[in-house]
Amino acid sequence: MTTEANPAGYTYDQDLPPSPVSRQRLDELLTDVMWAEEDVPALRRAGAILAPRVAELLDIWYDFIGSTPHLVAVFHGPDGEPDADYLARVRGRFEQWVLDVCERRFDDRWLAYQEEIALRHHTTKKNQTDGVESPATHVPMADMLALVVPVTLSIRPFLQEGATKDDDVEAMNQAWFKAVTVTLVLWSRPYAGELW
Amino acid sequence: MTTEANPAGYTYDQDLPPSPVSRQRLDELLTDVMWAEEDVPALRRAGAILAPRVAELLDIWYDFIGSTPHLVAVFHGPDGEPDADYLARVRGRFEQWVLDVCERRFDDRWLAYQEEIALRHHTTKKNQTDGVESPATHVPMADMLALVVPVTLSIRPFLQEGATKDDDVEAMNQAWFKAVTVTLVLWSRPYAGELW
Ligand code: HEM
Ligand code: HEM
Repeated sequence: MTTEANPAGYTYDQDLPPSPVSRQRLDELLTDVMWAEEDVPALRRAGAILAPRVAELLDIWYDFIGSTPHLVAVFHGPDGEPDADYLARVRGRFEQWVLDVCERRFDDRWLAYQEEIALRHHTTKKNQTDGVESPATHVPMADMLALVVPVTLSIRPFLQEGATKDDDVEAMNQAWFKAVTVTLVLWSRPYAGELW
Repeated sequence: MTTEANPAGYTYDQDLPPSPVSRQRLDELLTDVMWAEEDVPALRRAGAILAPRVAELLDIWYDFIGSTPHLVAVFHGPDGEPDADYLARVRGRFEQWVLDVCERRFDDRWLAYQEEIALRHHTTKKNQTDGVESPATHVPMADMLALVVPVTLSIRPFLQEGATKDDDVEAMNQAWFKAVTVTLVLWSRPYAGELW
């Protein structure tokens, strides 16, 4: 059920169709990224450090997207200008995603919502959640995947600033890198069909 | 022209069809990964450190692939067992790739060979270069992309061990991460078609 506290269009805790990706395939992908038991507490701790600063993090990412013409183009409205409402609604879900990456368990519901986000970047569902009429029918897969770099590197200063003596910044950053990579790989599924 | 020093099947310096990816699109992808001028010398320096130890690096990656059933499966022969010749020939090109990532300029030839490697992972050309009859028709895109994590993290100890006081390990590792990501994104092109 959504509550008032949920971002617009956020449906993680609602009934979603199960992901076409099996738990076994997810385990293989976790093996690919060398996911280990120690990554779980490292990621939770990263989440605790990032949570109070999620808005700052989104400022950085949105500045980057906003200042990069081929990226901001996917947020254009029918007039060919960035659609501020669309950007604002997605931003709310993007902030929530930072917390979800760090805090949620990798279970069937998690898999189902990864598939939902995949479809929202893909032609299947882009623009539907926010009821927008953007001429951009999809997020190009190449850009989606390439953003693993800024999204991984830009959290490092936040982790460094928030770390106490007991924290291992490198371990937290690596756990984040692994989790985000699995996420993005799952989002690439509808783009590749049978060869995914 | 290939010379005797070249790995079997390595065709970087031969005439290749031009990549369908334009230089302009490549520049966009470089923007996506925040590629900066400073990354060039950092990557060259990483190459100098890694070059004498490329065989050790490949030992690590091949151990990882060899011990992971869903990965080694793409190297199976018709008998359902790993094809040692196939593995050995690809290993030679993989070693060369480490040097190429660090040393080659991002020009049209570079783009053309990224497309060639893309096709060699994809159904279009897998198994052809080495004349093998593997039942695996392609490398699943998901695994290909997910391996950005081990390939990025595993070079760090090598950089650390080889660094002198003037070297910035973090900068070298980041330049590698960016370059490998662009590479993998280019290799995903044939999998995604129009939506790439
Ligand atoms: C690391 C890469 C990326 C991450 C982590 C990411 C994250 C997200 C998240 C969390 C959402 C909201 C999901 C939800 O509905 O709950 C979203 C939606 C969206 N993202 Fe991305 N994204 C990435 C790459 C990109 C790129 C490169 C673009 C292009 C500029 C982009 C454009 C969009 C758009 C347009 C939506 C809204 C889609 C819709 O109409 O529902 N994303 N993204
Ligand atoms: C970071 C990810 C990866 C990198 C950097 C990488 C690198 C390479 C390189 C450099 C080559 C030789 C290219 C050439 O012909 O010059 C190659 C070929 C090959 N790779 Fe990958 N690879 C990656 C992911 C994978 C994965 C996940 C698999 C599955 C286990 C795989 C299986 C193969 C196979 C079977 C070939 C030979 C293809 C053919 O028949 O020509 N690769 N790879």
